[in-house]
Amino acid sequence: MVTSTTFIRVRYGEVDQMGFLYYGNYALYYEVGRAEMIREFGYPYSNMEKDGVVMPVVKMSSKFLKPVQYDQLIRIETTIKELHPHPFMTFHHKLFNEENTLLHLAEVTLTFFNPLIQKRVDMPNKLKEILATHFQ
Amino acid sequence: MVTSTTFIRVRYGEVDQMGFLYYGNYALYYEVGRAEMIREFGYPYSNMEKDGVVMPVVKMSSKFLKPVQYDQLIRIETTIKELHPHPFMTFHHKLFNEENTLLHLAEVTLTFFNPLIQKRVDMPNKLKEILATHFQ
Amino acid sequence: MVTSTTFIRVRYGEVDQMGFLYYGNYALYYEVGRAEMIREFGYPYSNMEKDGVVMPVVKMSSKFLKPVQYDQLIRIETTIKELHPHPFMTFHHKLFNEENTLLHLAEVTLTFFNPLIQKRVDMPNKLKEILATHFQ
Amino acid sequence: MVTSTTFIRVRYGEVDQMGFLYYGNYALYYEVGRAEMIREFGYPYSNMEKDGVVMPVVKMSSKFLKPVQYDQLIRIETTIKELHPHPFMTFHHKLFNEENTLLHLAEVTLTFFNPLIQKRVDMPNKLKEILATHFQ
Repeated sequence: MVTSTTFIRVRYGEVDQMGFLYYGNYALYYEVGRAEMIREFGYPYSNMEKDGVVMPVVKMSSKFLKPVQYDQLIRIETTIKELHPHPFMTFHHKLFNEENTLLHLAEVTLTFFNPLIQKRVDMPNKLKEILATHFQ
Repeated sequence: MVTSTTFIRVRYGEVDQMGFLYYGNYALYYEVGRAEMIREFGYPYSNMEKDGVVMPVVKMSSKFLKPVQYDQLIRIETTIKELHPHPFMTFHHKLFNEENTLLHLAEVTLTFFNPLIQKRVDMPNKLKEILATHFQ
Repeated sequence: MVTSTTFIRVRYGEVDQMGFLYYGNYALYYEVGRAEMIREFGYPYSNMEKDGVVMPVVKMSSKFLKPVQYDQLIRIETTIKELHPHPFMTFHHKLFNEENTLLHLAEVTLTFFNPLIQKRVDMPNKLKEILATHFQ
Repeated sequence: MVTSTTFIRVRYGEVDQMGFLYYGNYALYYEVGRAEMIREFGYPYSNMEKDGVVMPVVKMSSKFLKPVQYDQLIRIETTIKELHPHPFMTFHHKLFNEENTLLHLAEVTLTFFNPLIQKRVDMPNKLKEILATHFQ
């Protein structure tokens, strides 16, 4: 299991007229959560794309426990719980406010895709090697 | 069971640099799907808000089967399969391209909330009566 | 001068907690306005991209006269007033509500860019020929 | 004249299929720029809203000099150049990449609005007093 923590301050344009973070905008927060985790691994996602592999989302589920509001500083805990045998990667996200209240849970599964050949591919070796050090 | 169909053309600003509809932007499509369904019921969501009830999302799950691309005309089929005994409403969404290929599946559960008293409330009677005509 | 009209219904996720269309989301509306105009010309923007030319925005200005609100059906009038001598294209947009009140004015200038050679290029001939029929 | 600096890392969902920050998403960056400036003043915008005043945008103009790309760390310099005699506030924004290249220029004018009485109002006194210390 490997966990990474990052912070996002909620923007005005992300909040709807209920005064809550719009439910579609959480996906941006998960994205930042997993991008920062992979950056910490030493293999930023932008480098993976330069290496010719992109990561489309294949599955997502979310639980909205308490609303997220404008200007709150949200702590995102991103966890990889286990390695998939197949070319998928699942990130678990927990969102907390500054009082440490759990606000939101999510699970996002991505795959690896080579846009040149328009096919799913295996996880890049660089990433495999990094993950191997965390799961042994 | 009640189903409603609507169409959305994919905007440039909704697509990411993979050339795919960004995974967070599907939520806007579900929103349009359920808004058009409720409009067809004769009780637009904007009227419900004027009546003092908002509908925050409490749960969502999505399956991304095939990518959605810029300028595609997407058909969204929105279905209510059953009535919840409790103050929740679940919408099922299917997205299709013009060749009738199924691209995406989602399930979104919302609740009813009164912002004045800051509490969850029962489903508005107007909506109950409409739904009763579809599920008997 | 050539004008095109299209309609957009304001989505919940596009509106901020003031209850107004978020000021950054008007850009999506301009985009739809010019995309529909070019589609009417018979040369959809998605085809232009397939032909190897993209159109980045180089300049934009907006006047927010009256707020745009959730669920309003907005009429967008998009006009090309004159041909640029250089490889630029300027679209003028007017937004109206259903009572025909002018809500918003904007002017967006785009250029032509070839991503393969990473350089600005001339307006594609197909588009030149179409525009020539409107401005003579 | 008063200037404030903040940083934003470009998110994947903010970039379009040209690989450039979508032109509508710069507005989010201006918003962060001015929000951080006002926070530094000691009067966060969220407090102003609690005090009953919101700030809708009335005018905006932007120049897109060079594209902004995924994962870049953008420096935003936000400047107030002068005080308006009337209830408006104009922020000037400059965006730079990590090599200190100027990428983008913008100017955003906002007004003050009281949602309860649905009318434009004068600048809140707290903000007037803060600005007075910077412009004398």
